[in-house]
Amino acid sequence: MTKINKAACIGGGVIGGAWAARFVLAGIDVAIFDPHPEAERIIGEVMANAERAYGMLTMAPLPPKGKITFVKSVEEAVQGADWIQESVPERVDLKRGVITQIDAAADPTALIGSSTSGIMPTDLQRDMKHPERMFVAHPYNPVYLLPLAELVGGEKTARATLEDAKAKLATIGMKGVIINKEIEAFVGDRLLEAVWREGLWLIKDDICDTETLDDVIRYSFGMRWAQMGMFETYRIAGGEAGMRHFIAQFGPCLSWPWTKLTDVVDLTDELVDKIANQSDAQSGARGIRELERIRDQNLVGIMHALKAGDDGRGWGAGKLLTEFEDYLWANAKKPEVDLGEVKPLKILDTKVSAAWVDYNGHMTEHRYLQVFGDTSDGVLRLIGVDLEYVRDGHSYYTVETHIRHLGEAKLGDALYTTCQILSSDDKRLQFFSTIYNAQTNEPVATAEQMMLHVDSKAGKAVAAPAQVLDKVKALTEAHARLPVPEGAGRHVGQKR
Amino acid sequence: MTKINKAACIGGGVIGGAWAARFVLAGIDVAIFDPHPEAERIIGEVMANAERAYGMLTMAPLPPKGKITFVKSVEEAVQGADWIQESVPERVDLKRGVITQIDAAADPTALIGSSTSGIMPTDLQRDMKHPERMFVAHPYNPVYLLPLAELVGGEKTARATLEDAKAKLATIGMKGVIINKEIEAFVGDRLLEAVWREGLWLIKDDICDTETLDDVIRYSFGMRWAQMGMFETYRIAGGEAGMRHFIAQFGPCLSWPWTKLTDVVDLTDELVDKIANQSDAQSGARGIRELERIRDQNLVGIMHALKAGDDGRGWGAGKLLTEFEDYLWANAKKPEVDLGEVKPLKILDTKVSAAWVDYNGHMTEHRYLQVFGDTSDGVLRLIGVDLEYVRDGHSYYTVETHIRHLGEAKLGDALYTTCQILSSDDKRLQFFSTIYNAQTNEPVATAEQMMLHVDSKAGKAVAAPAQVLDKVKALTEAHARLPVPEGAGRHVGQKR
Repeated sequence: MTKINKAACIGGGVIGGAWAARFVLAGIDVAIFDPHPEAERIIGEVMANAERAYGMLTMAPLPPKGKITFVKSVEEAVQGADWIQESVPERVDLKRGVITQIDAAADPTALIGSSTSGIMPTDLQRDMKHPERMFVAHPYNPVYLLPLAELVGGEKTARATLEDAKAKLATIGMKGVIINKEIEAFVGDRLLEAVWREGLWLIKDDICDTETLDDVIRYSFGMRWAQMGMFETYRIAGGEAGMRHFIAQFGPCLSWPWTKLTDVVDLTDELVDKIANQSDAQSGARGIRELERIRDQNLVGIMHALKAGDDGRGWGAGKLLTEFEDYLWANAKKPEVDLGEVKPLKILDTKVSAAWVDYNGHMTEHRYLQVFGDTSDGVLRLIGVDLEYVRDGHSYYTVETHIRHLGEAKLGDALYTTCQILSSDDKRLQFFSTIYNAQTNEPVATAEQMMLHVDSKAGKAVAAPAQVLDKVKALTEAHARLPVPEGAGRHVGQKR
Repeated sequence: MTKINKAACIGGGVIGGAWAARFVLAGIDVAIFDPHPEAERIIGEVMANAERAYGMLTMAPLPPKGKITFVKSVEEAVQGADWIQESVPERVDLKRGVITQIDAAADPTALIGSSTSGIMPTDLQRDMKHPERMFVAHPYNPVYLLPLAELVGGEKTARATLEDAKAKLATIGMKGVIINKEIEAFVGDRLLEAVWREGLWLIKDDICDTETLDDVIRYSFGMRWAQMGMFETYRIAGGEAGMRHFIAQFGPCLSWPWTKLTDVVDLTDELVDKIANQSDAQSGARGIRELERIRDQNLVGIMHALKAGDDGRGWGAGKLLTEFEDYLWANAKKPEVDLGEVKPLKILDTKVSAAWVDYNGHMTEHRYLQVFGDTSDGVLRLIGVDLEYVRDGHSYYTVETHIRHLGEAKLGDALYTTCQILSSDDKRLQFFSTIYNAQTNEPVATAEQMMLHVDSKAGKAVAAPAQVLDKVKALTEAHARLPVPEGAGRHVGQKR
């Protein structure tokens, strides 16, 4: 993957602001130019949403946040940037002017992407000196969570530019898909416009109201499309006989007089009122901020579900998330822990996410063990037992765990964990972890665990190699000078 | 909710078979008539998929499965049925004939639903004697997982029929949505046809291939639509200014020359070949059965994610699942446990689902605690501490847990759990649970737990009421005659 060193966002707003959030959260400095008087406020709100969403989305080590700078001109913004994203209003003359201005001031090798949802890149790059590095990178709202960017080149765009853009997007967790030929509205908005047109007719003709139409989508093909697209879904529907069979069976429907798509619905005041009123009845009980929050939690949950897909290998957006996390791990600064330091190790910062709580907002019992498990993983990485080590066929397995609940963790609570080594030998590693509430520094739960070093193919305990044992010993010796933690060595029901 | 007593499926196949699976898994007997020579095989395969999916979908107590009977005629199938579902091939004359035949033989109050994906109910009910009870119930593939059924009445359908159908569908976990007016293809297939038409043009014109088009869907609006439909999504996009603003901003695009929807694509052999070849390149590495399995795991995971939505209250299809589970619990036979019996209680049967395993196919550590937590819940229900009890403000909270791992649970393993009470007083309840592999009867893990009876509002331990304590005492006294389980009272690292 190819890193982005500095980004510039021309045009803030909901789209530009979310691009900025993606960059900043991936550790990239961003300069923003937007003459709108409320640009800083809007971007601040988007950034808050994005940070909350990322807090739930991943436990992988995000790098230190990049710096946001608000600047006074396009020229100032693009200085030193190698990715410049244009997100100004959707008018061809305005966009073309801004892009020409960017082109003149930017490094000639900097990539220039446009967030346009429909204008052809050929029309935007017309007046550029270096048009070969300009393309459309069309994202989807909420841009800080949905990973797609359609990459579309114009007549003068170099193919290498699109490949480069795709590689760079991966480093900020996004999925660039290259569209072969430019057309207005590209691919996604073509499909969306088709549904939108048909949907407007259904509402206008009183076939159903907006809530029913939405329910039809989200209780059926919406869930299908979160994980497989239209063609793969229909491939399955065709069964063993395959796509050819499916098209033969359903193709003819296309000439039936079903849709009204040949006409364009007239957006009269009456129709607009009808839609607005139905939408109020459907969703008006909740404010936009609340709906946003619910949507983002759902999208995070869906991506987590897809991460478990294909028997844990990950599927679709979940696989992409895994790949992004692998990238983050590979690029994370190795923790510089002084293995001889005489205090418990600080391992993890996390937050109680919506998927972790019961209907009372309390963290579910087994999620405590999930946090302790992530803590053990953190300890293991410190002694050199990382993903690669595990893939090579050795690991530490938990054989015994003792958990005490001392308090309650609630939705949104910030937590951190520490770990103290209690004992070790060439196979065994015994330690004591504590989950603290980050606000109060009070312990919420403790876990004493015994792990065993195993040859995972042979399925039996074996001595750990010297490079691991050296670190284990250093930690064990240092921590032997700490007092034994209260609660260690305890059995269930023991009097204090 | 109104229970269905007996169902009939006229026409098996993938759709009819999945309807049958829904009925049977909800405890309803089904008679199936399908003259197709392979009907039993096809339905058997669908049933196997459905059972596997339900095994992952819910831990709620499904009633004993209904009985499937394959019969020789429509008349025989509909005897005594109060829901009759027609799923024969999509030809109006054929369907009308079958429905007229059903009508003549069935109880006059039995509901008759058609699975047609496009034919108007008025055309189907033309020759019926009791047309008021006939309607379209149009489901979505995979019918055993996707909850939607569009309920559409014809000219002669009674409104009460649609309401009754909706209530009955809830008892088999489905979401009936009533469509106001009949039109060909109803609502969902109208929207799908619009996308399908536009998609075919995009492939024909080489704008992108099928894999890119599918990626555009599933990395962006597909995930949005799994949880909110088009109008609610756009309401958010409109921001505080609302739907009116959104339509004012984006409505005009409709008259731009974007889509090619005014034309119908010609499905030449060349285009069919192109699509089939692209689809092979995209998905051909996996067989249809594997894709089905992956899809079903994903859909289950998405519904689980949505179950956690809206801060644990559930959202969309996840909320529906919660409601279905509440219904199952309310209708579950209370376990008739002899509290004085001298053997550990058998509590739970479950299976290691795809969402529970790591990339090696091993059950993740914290999922063990989830199974133990479900086991504790089962024990608590036995002593009268159920959902209602908890909602009234009292509960048992876990304060301490000691887990030993004795073996490994792998993807798909069937597991069961047992529980032995070790000690109790008016506040405390100490017990020892074991997870067994159902195949080998070998213990996989054990957990010793201490729970405390609490007033959850006051957040402090209080004595349990007499009706709970009586049961606790009976169990404790009976189990006192059992040997103390190996591993009880153990602390971490203790020698055997």
